[in-house]
Amino acid sequence: MTARKVYIHEVATRDGFQNEARFVETDDKVALIDALSACGYARIEVTSFTSPKAIPALRDAEAVMHRIARRPGVVYTVLVPNVRGAERALSCQVDEVNLVMSVSESHNRTNLRMSREQSFAQLADVIRVVRETPTAINISLSTAMGCPMEGDVPLENVLGWMQRFADLGAHGVTLCDTTGMAFPSQVARLCQAARRQFPGLALTLHFHNTRGLALANALAALDQGIDRFDASLGGLGGCPYAPGATGNVCTEELVHMLELDGYDTGVDLAAILDAAARLPGLIGHDVPSQLLKAGRRLDLHPMPAADAIPEQRAFQP
Amino acid sequence: MTARKVYIHEVATRDGFQNEARFVETDDKVALIDALSACGYARIEVTSFTSPKAIPALRDAEAVMHRIARRPGVVYTVLVPNVRGAERALSCQVDEVNLVMSVSESHNRTNLRMSREQSFAQLADVIRVVRETPTAINISLSTAMGCPMEGDVPLENVLGWMQRFADLGAHGVTLCDTTGMAFPSQVARLCQAARRQFPGLALTLHFHNTRGLALANALAALDQGIDRFDASLGGLGGCPYAPGATGNVCTEELVHMLELDGYDTGVDLAAILDAAARLPGLIGHDVPSQLLKAGRRLDLHPMPAADAIPEQRAFQP
Repeated sequence: MTARKVYIHEVATRDGFQNEARFVETDDKVALIDALSACGYARIEVTSFTSPKAIPALRDAEAVMHRIARRPGVVYTVLVPNVRGAERALSCQVDEVNLVMSVSESHNRTNLRMSREQSFAQLADVIRVVRETPTAINISLSTAMGCPMEGDVPLENVLGWMQRFADLGAHGVTLCDTTGMAFPSQVARLCQAARRQFPGLALTLHFHNTRGLALANALAALDQGIDRFDASLGGLGGCPYAPGATGNVCTEELVHMLELDGYDTGVDLAAILDAAARLPGLIGHDVPSQLLKAGRRLDLHPMPAADAIPEQRAFQP
Repeated sequence: MTARKVYIHEVATRDGFQNEARFVETDDKVALIDALSACGYARIEVTSFTSPKAIPALRDAEAVMHRIARRPGVVYTVLVPNVRGAERALSCQVDEVNLVMSVSESHNRTNLRMSREQSFAQLADVIRVVRETPTAINISLSTAMGCPMEGDVPLENVLGWMQRFADLGAHGVTLCDTTGMAFPSQVARLCQAARRQFPGLALTLHFHNTRGLALANALAALDQGIDRFDASLGGLGGCPYAPGATGNVCTEELVHMLELDGYDTGVDLAAILDAAARLPGLIGHDVPSQLLKAGRRLDLHPMPAADAIPEQRAFQP
């Protein structure tokens, strides 16, 4: 039996770095992305063509896009908030633009400072510009599994926003668990409904590990046939509502699980662990990744010499 | 449809505290266990009747067992390494003894300072003593999903050790992922085989979150009909092979997932979150629990005033 292919989308240099207090130097961003390009990812979300005032951490978007060495077969995508951002992105020949809005009104207002209808109108303008080019269009729908201010988000609302973007010609939709509110049976219901209603849309799941559930939710999505996941190296990416909480689902932990379970991600786990090990030096603090601390499951340990085993025993079940 | 019952076994005061450098005062242990007794757990692993030299953190085992207020319906269990420990435990009228050995030779030698056959002989002696009393007997099999020194552990070995203890009259077996090496499809295979071969044994799963997989593995076990889980409040419990790694599966995160997925754990999540919040004060450091930092998924946040939304936006997918 051929292993089922799962496509991994790396978002650390965008969704991760934009949350960091320390500016990661352009040279360091380019070197990291070039390293990641050799790791077997399906897609890399490089940066964001937002205003430097809105996201100063990514104020070097053009420089980064121009200087990275683009590897054939990898889709290089960028976040774009409006037509001005789309024009900047298109001038860099990006492969895909990723447009973001929330399915809950409160989150859209705090996250993007406008109503959902204002966001939709603005993104519809972007789509009209971009669809005249060969550039692919993906929509990331935030708070699709719960809003930190409104609570539960009805499934019908998520499907309704998917429909509006499908009608405009979007190629893919990413359902985002923005603040880690998803749980497995909810993920299963949502994925099942979304796949059934939109068989023509490339469907990606974007989880956060805010409440420890990211890998369990990914497992539930896989069981429904989902084969595309956003993930962030080192588990970078914060949640403004949960200070100290972990961030996006950690790429190396997701790939570790998927490869053990027999999926074919194409991602070189040893290589991304090497890349993840660079992150603390770039951002100035430890990263949430457990796998980076513990190593892969078969990274074995030597048996201690008999006289080196302490009298204080572990009795570790 | 009635919600499926899942039994939660709290191990923080044993598996958690035994790993802590700071001695938790007997009064504090008793107060914590008394609080936990009111939370709806099926079983609480109170302490360990090991030598005070082997595990100084639990040198007050008798005092703790005598002073806690035992709540009808909760099974109070303790770790017992040998006949001497069993006699001490029985003198405290424990409901159950929990015996530990590893299914891999290397881990048994480092964890317990003897061969597996020596451990088995010693535990068989314990069982002969305890089965003359109404006290239940559970066996925790360490490294059942991988050994940090030997690597993969054949399924047949796990089933073989289960058989030997079943033959001696054990009532239950806990399959332990001692150092967080389990992955979902492996868990599914192991649970399926163990349930099929030993329908008469109470089967518990014991996961560690060393590589971030604890909840995903629990989900895989649930899918195979497993309904008993060890878990540790706050995610306490270390792994000597992965310094800085997270510990046992975190009780509040497991209960949070299970209740959202429609299982009936009987555990009061708000009450155990209150209890978990005491832990940093008792042990002198932060705990791995993400849920303690982030709150439950429907612990909502107020919408900020419009003029309080910063110009630096999140663009948080």
